[in-house]
Amino acid sequence: MGAAAARRLGRQTLSLESRPALVAVASAVGPMEGQGPLGRFFDVVEPDGLLGQASWERAEVKLLEEALDLACRKARLDKSELDVVIGGDLLNQLGAASFAARSHDRAFLGVFGACSTWTEGLALAGALADGGYVRRAGVVCSSHHDAAERQFRFPTEFAHQRPPTSTWTATGAAAAIVAAPDDAPASRSTPRLRYATLGRVVDVGEKNPYDLGSAMAPAAADTILAHLRDTGRRWSDYDLVVTGDLGRVGHPIAADLLSEAGISPDERFQDCGVLLYDPKQDVHAGGSGCACSAVTFAGYLYRGLAEGRWRRVLLVSTGALFSPTTYQQGESIPGIAHAVAVEREDEA
Amino acid sequence: MGAAAARRLGRQTLSLESRPALVAVASAVGPMEGQGPLGRFFDVVEPDGLLGQASWERAEVKLLEEALDLACRKARLDKSELDVVIGGDLLNQLGAASFAARSHDRAFLGVFGACSTWTEGLALAGALADGGYVRRAGVVCSSHHDAAERQFRFPTEFAHQRPPTSTWTATGAAAAIVAAPDDAPASRSTPRLRYATLGRVVDVGEKNPYDLGSAMAPAAADTILAHLRDTGRRWSDYDLVVTGDLGRVGHPIAADLLSEAGISPDERFQDCGVLLYDPKQDVHAGGSGCACSAVTFAGYLYRGLAEGRWRRVLLVSTGALFSPTTYQQGESIPGIAHAVAVEREDEA
Repeated sequence: MGAAAARRLGRQTLSLESRPALVAVASAVGPMEGQGPLGRFFDVVEPDGLLGQASWERAEVKLLEEALDLACRKARLDKSELDVVIGGDLLNQLGAASFAARSHDRAFLGVFGACSTWTEGLALAGALADGGYVRRAGVVCSSHHDAAERQFRFPTEFAHQRPPTSTWTATGAAAAIVAAPDDAPASRSTPRLRYATLGRVVDVGEKNPYDLGSAMAPAAADTILAHLRDTGRRWSDYDLVVTGDLGRVGHPIAADLLSEAGISPDERFQDCGVLLYDPKQDVHAGGSGCACSAVTFAGYLYRGLAEGRWRRVLLVSTGALFSPTTYQQGESIPGIAHAVAVEREDEA
Repeated sequence: MGAAAARRLGRQTLSLESRPALVAVASAVGPMEGQGPLGRFFDVVEPDGLLGQASWERAEVKLLEEALDLACRKARLDKSELDVVIGGDLLNQLGAASFAARSHDRAFLGVFGACSTWTEGLALAGALADGGYVRRAGVVCSSHHDAAERQFRFPTEFAHQRPPTSTWTATGAAAAIVAAPDDAPASRSTPRLRYATLGRVVDVGEKNPYDLGSAMAPAAADTILAHLRDTGRRWSDYDLVVTGDLGRVGHPIAADLLSEAGISPDERFQDCGVLLYDPKQDVHAGGSGCACSAVTFAGYLYRGLAEGRWRRVLLVSTGALFSPTTYQQGESIPGIAHAVAVEREDEA
């Protein structure tokens, strides 16, 4: 097809020529995220992580439903006007996104990239909207600290000590409405998806499930380098390059790897896991979980883009593709990172 | 985009106007699948379900790697010529597809729709190839009986009794190479993707994890009806309409639901879970698992299409979106089904 040459850039990047609009985003978080430095940017801060539910898992479903409902309200859309919802989370068999799908009754595509799920969803929604396959797609993503801890490590009640390299799985959910340009009630200041760079699995042999930042940092660097290579853009073309949840241990490793590749990551290189919590909140190396980059984007970064504080942001959500079964069987922890370039139309 | 009107059909169907080619498929299965009625159609029948590995999970990774390697060889492609691999499986956090991704070093998108994962992957690969975002995509999907049993129910060694409504998770993996028309060494007999109908989550309140056919049947009927509605096609336009893994309990329920909607499902209505095993193999209600529809398609249905035995097949893989956590917490089991219409070019 004639479009192919324009839409495929290099080996890993999808060029979203029509610039699908992020017409609305929404975030709902737990109490700890609300108390952090980004607290005032979130739409909903729940006072109790259980949200009145019988289990943490049901609370996570509820957070997801809240985020999608709110994003639709902001976009002045009924959920029935979405053509598809794309979503995922950390629970086994996508227990949050799948069950939340009962509430929207739209075509549903489950995706999983661990904590990179948010940008995987945005990338696919962007391609489906850009390609004319859907008018409006919802993207949802969540994690819940207590549900994740008991699934991946130990139940919270066990109160085991976490080493300093460990990160804190964020409690929260985010939703975005991605619309084809003709179907977007969007202005020139509406943040839009311009590129999506799909990540490769990079496994450097890290086996410590309490140091996921080190496991994911090489994948983050790999995807950022692929993005710059495929698009011909330079580091300085972005106001911010924000990794997902490398945290205070992983983020400097990614910076080192970029430096070795000839990039000079400056103060524009940030990390959602570092931004989300204050070090005084005792989260050790920072935030993590699918919600980490999702709510940081939906709360903080999107607003900065919409308000013109930044004009181009590369969001590089990062995922550690492991399970208790794999690490207990002695497997290493593969990392992955998917990137989306989000920018204002007046940047085009 | 001008293309939008043509590529979006109704509410749930993607119209793949360029008809991306399934240039090659491959299947690798365990011993029991090899002994079943479709045994001779599979490329590889492993004599031992462990494949010489230390665990069932590693055996599943190996099956996936074998299937992708073989599909690439059949397509005369090096794995490096794939732009993306899209895949998933039943293991927590996609433990098979994620770990197999270490072996191909390509951009990787994890997808999860339980046993509907195969058609979810084909649908997304089809859209990315049709839209010009990738030249060639690999789609991979797997399940392993023993790995699934111990994760979802009880370890095999426990030897618990399975009720008659239960199905048997298939051991196997399949891979497909989906190519944009300009990049396909394809002939007029090469099976092609024409439509993809994305399923909604349908939850009828079924709570029995030993009767997934009943939980998924309503979703299968819902997606088939959506497909016919969106495309304007009739039941008789297909030589076969094949559900994923409803089995001998769920498939008649889906047939009843279609009948109630005014469709008369005749002998063209089949089910991979019924086709894969002989009743004498003691699988109770039939086959299930991500591999069930994946290997039945890659082994049996694809060959029949390529040889002209059938010209149009609607494959409707079905998934039960549950986990032990959700059913132990008393949640019902949501079902989902994604459909792809596969046909020969001379059918266009």
